[in-house]
Amino acid sequence: RTLRIGLIPGDGIGREVIPAGRRILESLPSSLNLKFSFVDLEAGYETFQKTGTALPDKTVDTLKKECDGALFGAVSTKVAGYSSPIVALRKKLDLYANVRPVKTTAGNSTGKPIDLVIVRENTEDLYVKEERTIDTPNGKVAEAIKRISEHASFRISNIAGEIALRRQNIRAAAPGISTRDQPMVTITHKSNVLSQTDGLFRETARRALAAEKFSSVYVEEQIVDSMVYKLFRQPEFYDVIVAPNLYGDILSDGAAALVGSLGLVPSANVGDGFAIGEPCHGSAPDIEGQGISNPIATIRSVALMLEFLGEMDAAAKIYAAVDGNLDAAQFLTPDMGGKATTQQVLEDVLKRL
Amino acid sequence: RTLRIGLIPGDGIGREVIPAGRRILESLPSSLNLKFSFVDLEAGYETFQKTGTALPDKTVDTLKKECDGALFGAVSTKVAGYSSPIVALRKKLDLYANVRPVKTTAGNSTGKPIDLVIVRENTEDLYVKEERTIDTPNGKVAEAIKRISEHASFRISNIAGEIALRRQNIRAAAPGISTRDQPMVTITHKSNVLSQTDGLFRETARRALAAEKFSSVYVEEQIVDSMVYKLFRQPEFYDVIVAPNLYGDILSDGAAALVGSLGLVPSANVGDGFAIGEPCHGSAPDIEGQGISNPIATIRSVALMLEFLGEMDAAAKIYAAVDGNLDAAQFLTPDMGGKATTQQVLEDVLKRL
Ligand SMILES: CC(C)[C@H](C(=O)O)[C@@H](O)C(=O)O
Ligand SMILES: CC(C)[C@H](C(=O)O)[C@@H](O)C(=O)O
Repeated sequence: RTLRIGLIPGDGIGREVIPAGRRILESLPSSLNLKFSFVDLEAGYETFQKTGTALPDKTVDTLKKECDGALFGAVSTKVAGYSSPIVALRKKLDLYANVRPVKTTAGNSTGKPIDLVIVRENTEDLYVKEERTIDTPNGKVAEAIKRISEHASFRISNIAGEIALRRQNIRAAAPGISTRDQPMVTITHKSNVLSQTDGLFRETARRALAAEKFSSVYVEEQIVDSMVYKLFRQPEFYDVIVAPNLYGDILSDGAAALVGSLGLVPSANVGDGFAIGEPCHGSAPDIEGQGISNPIATIRSVALMLEFLGEMDAAAKIYAAVDGNLDAAQFLTPDMGGKATTQQVLEDVLKRL
Repeated sequence: RTLRIGLIPGDGIGREVIPAGRRILESLPSSLNLKFSFVDLEAGYETFQKTGTALPDKTVDTLKKECDGALFGAVSTKVAGYSSPIVALRKKLDLYANVRPVKTTAGNSTGKPIDLVIVRENTEDLYVKEERTIDTPNGKVAEAIKRISEHASFRISNIAGEIALRRQNIRAAAPGISTRDQPMVTITHKSNVLSQTDGLFRETARRALAAEKFSSVYVEEQIVDSMVYKLFRQPEFYDVIVAPNLYGDILSDGAAALVGSLGLVPSANVGDGFAIGEPCHGSAPDIEGQGISNPIATIRSVALMLEFLGEMDAAAKIYAAVDGNLDAAQFLTPDMGGKATTQQVLEDVLKRL
């Protein structure tokens, strides 16, 4: 099988980590029978400055027409009046699920082992960006729409349930690694305040997860503020957390803090038959150009993309190589307390592939 | 001076901790020349079941006409189709600031010392609760309004700046306790996605904090997801964090996790000349009726209420008594790993007053 992958480095350290992701794909063992071809695509702030748009049509068209998947780096966001291309891309390609696994390995666990995944709705909520501002005698008043649909809430909850089952199968195949004996999905919302929008999310999630196929899944719920509290007090308790877009955004950064560095946390933007791997970290202007950005989040995002393209064996090989690197703790970038460069970490992971 | 205080225990453990708060006020040293009178007021789920409303007019009227301040316990929230009375109360009394200090004491610090305060806007954002649901061929679609006004953003940022200055004065009077030499306010928002609403909050906060009186305050900003990450990675760095309503809600539960228990974290809902002390924890049905709820959050909320009623000396006495209790670590409730009852903790704090 040959997969065509779009490469969208974006800005800042996105340009340092995406090439590492490409190297990983090129170096997969030939026994996997997987080939890759690549196409370089533009997006981000520099693209915006050059062309007047942060997300050129050509990027979207090429992804739609030619590609099976893509890797997205990061874009600078601290600039006013310019709209984030990743948010637009998620909507244009209907990549409705943002999947963010957060786990410790034997080597980087400071406390109890964490192995959870945040499944974030990726197309609506406040991210519809429908805003307006009016002038009143008392100053400006701005409003934004938070939109929650039954349709989007159902499909995100359904995929959350499927991910919970898949994780359970993986655990069953490798007994002893985890002590969890029942898959669990935690529905996150704020329906005590937002009875209609978050109420609809909650109710629809309950319905989706009540399906026969999920009968082995334990379903519970948490109000978002309490979810953040519990995430920090007993992270080892959680398995799959499903949340509307904005809560998912916040929760995944919070979970990343638990495992030591945003530089470790991958994500995949997943639609039907398409996936974009994207490290959770940003463009990190403070360390840009020094060659010390952590490539692990991107490398794991490569694996996650492959998982959602159905290539489980390739994904497993990459995860194992990353775990090997982290457990050995010999080549770690500065965000992990080490002194290694991006290149050294990459080489170490390649060696373990 | 005699202050008249409304007591609104609400539901669950609210009924166990509010009486403790009353005892503290009654037991303040007479040298402070402060007297208190009390009025018992109803609100919450049981009130809703009994009277059909969670917040009777009588409660609001009495607070408005007779009281200088109030203590609010907690209300059950896990019930659909019933609207939270504290949210309504904040709006009806225009208690525009929700102030939530989070700090470690020598005795309960596990890592670096934390001493920060979250200043949460308390009247608008998604808490305006303007929602609607429409039926479409593709299922239900619900929308909620997130409203951000220049007016509310300005006054919350202004009070955040004032709190930063006040904290600096307290530090200056007790040198050695903290190593911070400049007050700081961190503006939290998500203007990279919500350019108009959160953009207005950010811009207005910048303007409010650029006032001459705040020239000694260092002002910085964080995107909310990154704020949660940083809060967990380097909490000791933060002083005053100002945020729109929902982010403030989430951040304060997150910060509470850092100091070990929600049972320690107080809040005050502050308006011009009025303040309601409110522990950050909920009604905790799991431990209700066992007499083991932690009264510290309420006792600190009493002090915080007094601070905003201008009674700094009384507040300082209460804080010191609480710190004494925590540092001695002899009488701690189970949430803190101890075995003491609510009553024993209360008596220990009273002894130290
Ligand atoms: C850059 C920003 C628009 C984005 C988001 O909020 O989705 C980022 O925080 C993320 O989590 O991918
Ligand atoms: C009970 C709930 C409505 C409330 C809120 O969201 O404000 C609570 O979480 C709080 O923080 O006081």
